[in-house]
Amino acid sequence: MIVVMHAAAREEEINEVSRRLQKLGYGVHRSTGETCTVLGVIGEYNDSIALTLESMPGVDKVINVSKPFKLVSREFKKEDTVIEFGDIKIGGPDVVVIAGPCAVEGEKELLESARIVKEVGVNILRGGAFKPRTSPYSFQGLEEEGLKYLSRAREETGLLIVTEVMNQYNVPLVAEHADILQVGTRNMQNFYLLRELGRQKKPVLLKRGMSATIEEWLMAAEYILSEGNEKVILCERGIRTFEHYTRNTLDLSAVPIVKYLSHLPVIVDPSHGTGNWRWVPAMARAAIAAGADGLIVEVHPRPQEALSDGPQSLNPERFRQMLEETRQVAMSVGRRLALS
Amino acid sequence: MIVVMHAAAREEEINEVSRRLQKLGYGVHRSTGETCTVLGVIGEYNDSIALTLESMPGVDKVINVSKPFKLVSREFKKEDTVIEFGDIKIGGPDVVVIAGPCAVEGEKELLESARIVKEVGVNILRGGAFKPRTSPYSFQGLEEEGLKYLSRAREETGLLIVTEVMNQYNVPLVAEHADILQVGTRNMQNFYLLRELGRQKKPVLLKRGMSATIEEWLMAAEYILSEGNEKVILCERGIRTFEHYTRNTLDLSAVPIVKYLSHLPVIVDPSHGTGNWRWVPAMARAAIAAGADGLIVEVHPRPQEALSDGPQSLNPERFRQMLEETRQVAMSVGRRLALS
Amino acid sequence: MIVVMHAAAREEEINEVSRRLQKLGYGVHRSTGETCTVLGVIGEYNDSIALTLESMPGVDKVINVSKPFKLVSREFKKEDTVIEFGDIKIGGPDVVVIAGPCAVEGEKELLESARIVKEVGVNILRGGAFKPRTSPYSFQGLEEEGLKYLSRAREETGLLIVTEVMNQYNVPLVAEHADILQVGTRNMQNFYLLRELGRQKKPVLLKRGMSATIEEWLMAAEYILSEGNEKVILCERGIRTFEHYTRNTLDLSAVPIVKYLSHLPVIVDPSHGTGNWRWVPAMARAAIAAGADGLIVEVHPRPQEALSDGPQSLNPERFRQMLEETRQVAMSVGRRLALS
Amino acid sequence: MIVVMHAAAREEEINEVSRRLQKLGYGVHRSTGETCTVLGVIGEYNDSIALTLESMPGVDKVINVSKPFKLVSREFKKEDTVIEFGDIKIGGPDVVVIAGPCAVEGEKELLESARIVKEVGVNILRGGAFKPRTSPYSFQGLEEEGLKYLSRAREETGLLIVTEVMNQYNVPLVAEHADILQVGTRNMQNFYLLRELGRQKKPVLLKRGMSATIEEWLMAAEYILSEGNEKVILCERGIRTFEHYTRNTLDLSAVPIVKYLSHLPVIVDPSHGTGNWRWVPAMARAAIAAGADGLIVEVHPRPQEALSDGPQSLNPERFRQMLEETRQVAMSVGRRLALS
Repeated sequence: MIVVMHAAAREEEINEVSRRLQKLGYGVHRSTGETCTVLGVIGEYNDSIALTLESMPGVDKVINVSKPFKLVSREFKKEDTVIEFGDIKIGGPDVVVIAGPCAVEGEKELLESARIVKEVGVNILRGGAFKPRTSPYSFQGLEEEGLKYLSRAREETGLLIVTEVMNQYNVPLVAEHADILQVGTRNMQNFYLLRELGRQKKPVLLKRGMSATIEEWLMAAEYILSEGNEKVILCERGIRTFEHYTRNTLDLSAVPIVKYLSHLPVIVDPSHGTGNWRWVPAMARAAIAAGADGLIVEVHPRPQEALSDGPQSLNPERFRQMLEETRQVAMSVGRRLALS
Repeated sequence: MIVVMHAAAREEEINEVSRRLQKLGYGVHRSTGETCTVLGVIGEYNDSIALTLESMPGVDKVINVSKPFKLVSREFKKEDTVIEFGDIKIGGPDVVVIAGPCAVEGEKELLESARIVKEVGVNILRGGAFKPRTSPYSFQGLEEEGLKYLSRAREETGLLIVTEVMNQYNVPLVAEHADILQVGTRNMQNFYLLRELGRQKKPVLLKRGMSATIEEWLMAAEYILSEGNEKVILCERGIRTFEHYTRNTLDLSAVPIVKYLSHLPVIVDPSHGTGNWRWVPAMARAAIAAGADGLIVEVHPRPQEALSDGPQSLNPERFRQMLEETRQVAMSVGRRLALS
Repeated sequence: MIVVMHAAAREEEINEVSRRLQKLGYGVHRSTGETCTVLGVIGEYNDSIALTLESMPGVDKVINVSKPFKLVSREFKKEDTVIEFGDIKIGGPDVVVIAGPCAVEGEKELLESARIVKEVGVNILRGGAFKPRTSPYSFQGLEEEGLKYLSRAREETGLLIVTEVMNQYNVPLVAEHADILQVGTRNMQNFYLLRELGRQKKPVLLKRGMSATIEEWLMAAEYILSEGNEKVILCERGIRTFEHYTRNTLDLSAVPIVKYLSHLPVIVDPSHGTGNWRWVPAMARAAIAAGADGLIVEVHPRPQEALSDGPQSLNPERFRQMLEETRQVAMSVGRRLALS
Repeated sequence: MIVVMHAAAREEEINEVSRRLQKLGYGVHRSTGETCTVLGVIGEYNDSIALTLESMPGVDKVINVSKPFKLVSREFKKEDTVIEFGDIKIGGPDVVVIAGPCAVEGEKELLESARIVKEVGVNILRGGAFKPRTSPYSFQGLEEEGLKYLSRAREETGLLIVTEVMNQYNVPLVAEHADILQVGTRNMQNFYLLRELGRQKKPVLLKRGMSATIEEWLMAAEYILSEGNEKVILCERGIRTFEHYTRNTLDLSAVPIVKYLSHLPVIVDPSHGTGNWRWVPAMARAAIAAGADGLIVEVHPRPQEALSDGPQSLNPERFRQMLEETRQVAMSVGRRLALS
């Protein structure tokens, strides 16, 4: 922690800040510069203390020079975290693919989707039973009924299931039916949900908030790890910018940054990240080239009939083509697409 | 709803879209332009249908020309919604002031704050018992204990209480102690929470999400109204931009826009909106001049000792001065500051 | 300048950075913390040196703790800069109003606008002869012909003239006809233009770039001052965000911040800042309440016939009403609207 | 063009808008919906007319359904534009690499860089002689002297030269020394410069403005094409967002979108796009996987000594490794890296 004093700070103000820091147990190194005085503070950064220091007379700003995340950091754990389901490993050398419809629309439709993704070798099925929607008048998902269809799809196909859980009280219910529990972009800072997910054992797929910094996203993961569950998969899904051609701006630079800062696996959602099936294959290829550990893609047997997010879903043919392209790119970066 | 066909759309594609719309019960007006054909669709906009139309061959985009909100709109209700607590009216001719510490830190401290704001005529006390924090290692609030202190502050001072509720299961508990239930910026799209608040009777203070559009914010309010509670107070608190000098960029243009689109009262939080006490008085004055129905301001007896958000809290003296300035501005726009 | 070393930086890396800094003439104070070592660097901040330090082994980041602007800063000059034209003073106790059409459309139309704004006491006429337009096929302004009409409007009405200059070679030409030379948002970092404006004597109205930070904006002003012209008027005109209801998000918090950091006057453009006449009066009032030294507003005799930016122009009646409202707000913050 | 009337628009207002449109030569199709009336307007979109329509009574908004760009669009020209220099083709099947230092720092240093990039097979050298800098006190480039060094580097190595031109009056001078003229991010909407570049014959590398939408970027290219020069290479270099870990957010989705909307080649600058050499190789690979026609990368013999943008420059060894990785990715998408 560094305290930068105002150019015009008086000697007694500087001393007052020093005294306060020492009283709080910090060591203080003073560096008297030409335009301002800077205090180097020795001891662990504390948010509240930093903020209150900032309101002391003569203080210009307080800078945190240490990173705020601990358990998720590479410093804490050097080796990559790999999340395993038998042969399927997320975060290992192979690149996983998760695919399926945006929403679970019915038993028949879901099984059709499951068969389509299974047929091309995908091992993990996505599908939302609980759908967060901007409008109260939009389709909100089949809820528990949808979860049952997901379970049936697993029974029939052997696919693993990823599905969203929207609040902490539904965690046991969703965990009963899902293999991986997804936290959606709007819930990235739902701290009750995060803590509850930290207390159960199944892996969590944590989507980046649509306006979250990488640091906030890692801190959200820190909530889960701090409760004891270190099986967190990060998922970049686009951030909100001024650009209109895409629904969001997919921030692929987050991939190498997260891999550098953290030991957790990171996957990419090019469907929500662009909002348009047309750009999905290009961004799927780019994600793998950037080093992503996997993809989560929306696929629908007939996108034009989808109840939710049709325009960003690939039809089966385009999905197969995307897989083939992605397979080539994965090999070019020394990895394999984990298809069975 | 308008369907814009691609310049190169074939006649049969246009007809297919028309047929589909008619099958869904819509009327269709075709307008064959020089560069493209446009279909004017008669009937209520439906999100899912619009999205799936977009993936039909030949379709360029689907545009919603009607506004998505209903119950919150001025079209639905012409007169301003006024929320009343005896003499205190939010959304009426007078401008309300809500003030208090960011977090409830202890009984003694809270009572001290309560007395300070009471003394200058403020009628509503703010203070967080549940604190959403980016880091799991930061102070998270006194929780139920904090709620009790708030109740005691009301008993002693007669102040009304605003405090945040962070999940739907805590609504009854918080409603027991608070007069107005606050939804924080991170929970603006916590739809479970919104629905639950719609089912109880106390007014709700709904903060704008830090990256929410005005439309999404009004849709979040629509969730509450659609469940039967129309006592919603909107609160602008800054949006996330690239500017670093302020914690957020306070979007004051949201004030006249919300007043135009909706009948709900709108207040402004210049403390979170700027993140620095130094800019709070100027933005408080500006908010009132822009037509806000009230202010919610952080005040702390000794900001440099605050456990949370000290740098954005006014000390009592600066708060008094801000009130005096704001009082003048309120009069200049034909309103009065509702101080007792 | 502060150099933060990586947690894992080796002793020899730290020493190497120290040696390099000392060789460059800097003093170095080392502060060995618990998680990392920090070097406090004494001597003036240098951009290039900072950047190259960052690529040295073991360095995590380099932080500039001194502000980069000099001549524009309050530290450099304590008193407000006031720009005077006889009785008219920009940056003094009174609030100035600049008004007129977006573009000069013809001699007759301009004179009509000039008379309208003159009649209500406004002293400064705005009007673009050179119009930066996104499309090469849009109306680009009357150019030199338009400047002549502006001169004629001044002769006839005695109004001062503000008009945009789009490149350094036109500075003499525009300066011949204008009293204040405007730099548009797209040219805020046209450094040739800025330097040229620094070498002439007329005041410059410098609009904030649509994605410029406050710091970059002040640095653009620094370019002008560094060449010898200190008559710079800053103009906030909205920044680019994800919000769609407004063309830009007017950042009124920039007003108190600029007044705090700099001695230069700052005015606000609520017309471009919102893009819709409907929100202009509210934002004009808010700007004055926030402490702005003036307003620049688009007024058109018949907005529906304007060749450029009609929807954001006030008609004469609405403009008069806006002035009356603004006058009240100005008085409420202890200032007067400078109308003759 | 579509005119959406207010829900409450009166019949006479709708008729008045219709009459006005017909007077302007447009055909009008009226579509009377349940919540509002919409007018489909037949005839070419016109910005000014659209804007003025918006201020007519009863009008809610005017929507442009046709795209504003013409000469740059795929509709106008189906085949890819390929820019040729003998064997080197930009926009063809092969992927080009442009590399070199951020700024030309001296003759010796430049020749050293030129040899490094030549040695690994790169055909095009980048290097700035004119440097746009936020601060007037930063190194601004060697200007004409720097251009001469670039010419000498070409003579000695046979490399093609790309360098930035910052204003229209320098176009002939820069064109004398450069093979490709670069427009920097701050000048993307310097319309004088764009027009001048449209009147000369050398190819133009047009960087995206840091807050420009894809549409504005293509419109900037349209300025160049509309003057007769169709040799434009678009360059994505990151946009400004709230994320701090990177200097900009590289918007790779712009690559497939531009390839879809336009026939022009598009390349990517991962150095400015991230601001940190550490993320450059990953983003270079991702750019190629996304379909970019080339890369422009900063390489410096000794990044820690660079006068400008050292932290984002690769050293020779890392550059070689990046090329090798990128070569593999290019092959995986059916292309070759154009190295000699």
